[in-house]
Amino acid sequence: MLCARPRLWSRADADGAAGMKCYLDYNATTPLAGPVRDAMLACMDGLPGNPSSTHQFGRARRAMIEAAREQVAQLVGVQPSQVIFTSGGTEANNLALHAVTAGRTPGRIAVSSIEHPSVLEMARHLADSGWQTDLLGVDTQCRVTEAALQQNITADTRLVSVMMANNETGAIQDIASIADYARRAGAVMHTDAVQAVGRLAADFADSGVQLMSLSSHKIYGPQGVGALVYDKALELTPLQYGGGQERGYRAGTENVAGIVGFGAAAELALQRQASDSEYLRSLRDALEAGLARYPQITIFAQQAERLPNTVQLAVNGIDGEALLMQLDRAGIAVSSGSACSSGNNEASHVLLAMGVEPVLARGAIRISLGRDTTQQDIDAVLNQIGQQQQWVQKAGQVAGW
Amino acid sequence: MLCARPRLWSRADADGAAGMKCYLDYNATTPLAGPVRDAMLACMDGLPGNPSSTHQFGRARRAMIEAAREQVAQLVGVQPSQVIFTSGGTEANNLALHAVTAGRTPGRIAVSSIEHPSVLEMARHLADSGWQTDLLGVDTQCRVTEAALQQNITADTRLVSVMMANNETGAIQDIASIADYARRAGAVMHTDAVQAVGRLAADFADSGVQLMSLSSHKIYGPQGVGALVYDKALELTPLQYGGGQERGYRAGTENVAGIVGFGAAAELALQRQASDSEYLRSLRDALEAGLARYPQITIFAQQAERLPNTVQLAVNGIDGEALLMQLDRAGIAVSSGSACSSGNNEASHVLLAMGVEPVLARGAIRISLGRDTTQQDIDAVLNQIGQQQQWVQKAGQVAGW
Repeated sequence: MLCARPRLWSRADADGAAGMKCYLDYNATTPLAGPVRDAMLACMDGLPGNPSSTHQFGRARRAMIEAAREQVAQLVGVQPSQVIFTSGGTEANNLALHAVTAGRTPGRIAVSSIEHPSVLEMARHLADSGWQTDLLGVDTQCRVTEAALQQNITADTRLVSVMMANNETGAIQDIASIADYARRAGAVMHTDAVQAVGRLAADFADSGVQLMSLSSHKIYGPQGVGALVYDKALELTPLQYGGGQERGYRAGTENVAGIVGFGAAAELALQRQASDSEYLRSLRDALEAGLARYPQITIFAQQAERLPNTVQLAVNGIDGEALLMQLDRAGIAVSSGSACSSGNNEASHVLLAMGVEPVLARGAIRISLGRDTTQQDIDAVLNQIGQQQQWVQKAGQVAGW
Repeated sequence: MLCARPRLWSRADADGAAGMKCYLDYNATTPLAGPVRDAMLACMDGLPGNPSSTHQFGRARRAMIEAAREQVAQLVGVQPSQVIFTSGGTEANNLALHAVTAGRTPGRIAVSSIEHPSVLEMARHLADSGWQTDLLGVDTQCRVTEAALQQNITADTRLVSVMMANNETGAIQDIASIADYARRAGAVMHTDAVQAVGRLAADFADSGVQLMSLSSHKIYGPQGVGALVYDKALELTPLQYGGGQERGYRAGTENVAGIVGFGAAAELALQRQASDSEYLRSLRDALEAGLARYPQITIFAQQAERLPNTVQLAVNGIDGEALLMQLDRAGIAVSSGSACSSGNNEASHVLLAMGVEPVLARGAIRISLGRDTTQQDIDAVLNQIGQQQQWVQKAGQVAGW
């Protein structure tokens, strides 16, 4: 009804009669970029072959993987041999925590309280093997505090894991400083850079980390592929055993088409990061200027340095799930938190960690923009939120709020 | 030079000038079937969406996964809720062994000596947590023996893992009898059915197992996706933590296009299994009739019931790697063992377990046929092996062998 069709995937929207679609949930997943789709299709239509086979069919597949490894390595400024392909960001995060704890004498690990569930749940699981997890608290703007580092990082801390940018608020951490702190304490530093790459310049060396998780489907690549980038001075324990793939760090026949797509997406992300970010920031600013007309709206972590594409907000008096459903009926897709926990109506652990009142946190929705977002999409979501807002105001007047 | 182009992927062989290609390594990986490719492409070109998102974009993706789950479930005759999608057969095997041992009081597990490395290496890894692994021996025809079961399965045995069909020799185990033996001893029964499905009728209930591993890329589906099928009476411990995907058994945003492809491949495999097997058996019999002309050739496990597409052989006096390279130069792809261990020149652990002399085992090559194989391919590989054979005979006469 309201929005223009996004550019990349409009060509393929077979259901032409289904009304307009306005996708504003790029932090949950991104559409496949055209060149990514084409690279995957060329791989799918090519000769068959298992990359571990030594014949020419196998060697051709091996070469595809190594070309993609080079592309992913360039995105974060490392050598290709530092890239371990995984089945996604969750496996990369699980592997990061497992790789430096499994088989070691248990000690402590410190993870921020606003991490993705794939870090928080894995950290909880490590407690079964005797590891103590310390949660690093954040301030009201979603930033890990200096005090949290001082209180929790000790000589027993073996690993510190803090995400580069938060998937819900978009808040960016000062990873270089945290990494410096962690490494001076003798801990290994990991960052989940899944939401950051492609939206920030995320250089492995500059960030000072030893482990970095990446995901393909947040940068216009396919779902089901990611990577753990590692400092080769580390000794890692694999999570999955079998053939010697990924230099023994990750067994299993490689997802060749997925890896090829991830490589193409990484190359594109490197080329486009600066211009994408500038474009997204201008749209985001327009969205926030529109939201500023409504005093009942709170934008979370607005004082923090944030991803250029992410706005998490709550409308006082409206439940987040209800607002999401109203927008959905209008063909507008936003999130009521991270997609991974969608469907339950619990308040976001990120917002609670920031000290947001539970009732307001339950009202949160996340609008996340991408390459295909247009000003018409921004107008559409503002229009819908405005209608809801008016309804709340009227109800409030009647009820004497 | 010699073979017809296989039918499915010939359309896409961009390198038209590179000479004929003869792919006879279907146990390493299969090409994408046309309908699989088309289903994946429709998914890739569709609207974006994270299956965990509650809006219409997410729900459409969720529906794709559930339709594929139904297709995979039907292939082995289970309910869709018994299917856990994984990143492949290796993860499925790792998950099977982990799921029923992790966090439990260590006991014993019994795995056959001819398992895939993803079972053998994972079993070895469980020793780190105090589990004892007993290897079930096989006879000269690659079949787990009754004596091996009697000697190794005890009241302390918590898990028995025996593959349904061996990837190298193609030998088929009597899984129902082994499962009966295991379950009477109180052990959980797992089978790696990666090479069996699509080539045999592999019904979960008929096989008597409680856990079954499947892989997409052995049945003309994409690489990087598989499944663990489970008996819902089991309590499983996940291998990967994070969001609640796959009912909590396997966290991480799903590889939607891969899963859709796996579903399409499963549907096709169910439709085609009987006719494919008949066709493959006729080609395999023609191949073996041709090989029978050479007395220096040994075909392994030839007395066992075998997959209809697999022939593992050795030419006395010729090294397997050398023969593989010679065939490769002629554009013919075969394997010198499992693809996962290709590139090293160790004798196959499967053949050694069968009591084959190391020198003969090192001469082994595996020819595995598929839907696109033609009689011309069989003629081509026989012709090449015949040339090598003549060379060996002449050299033998000169040397007085």
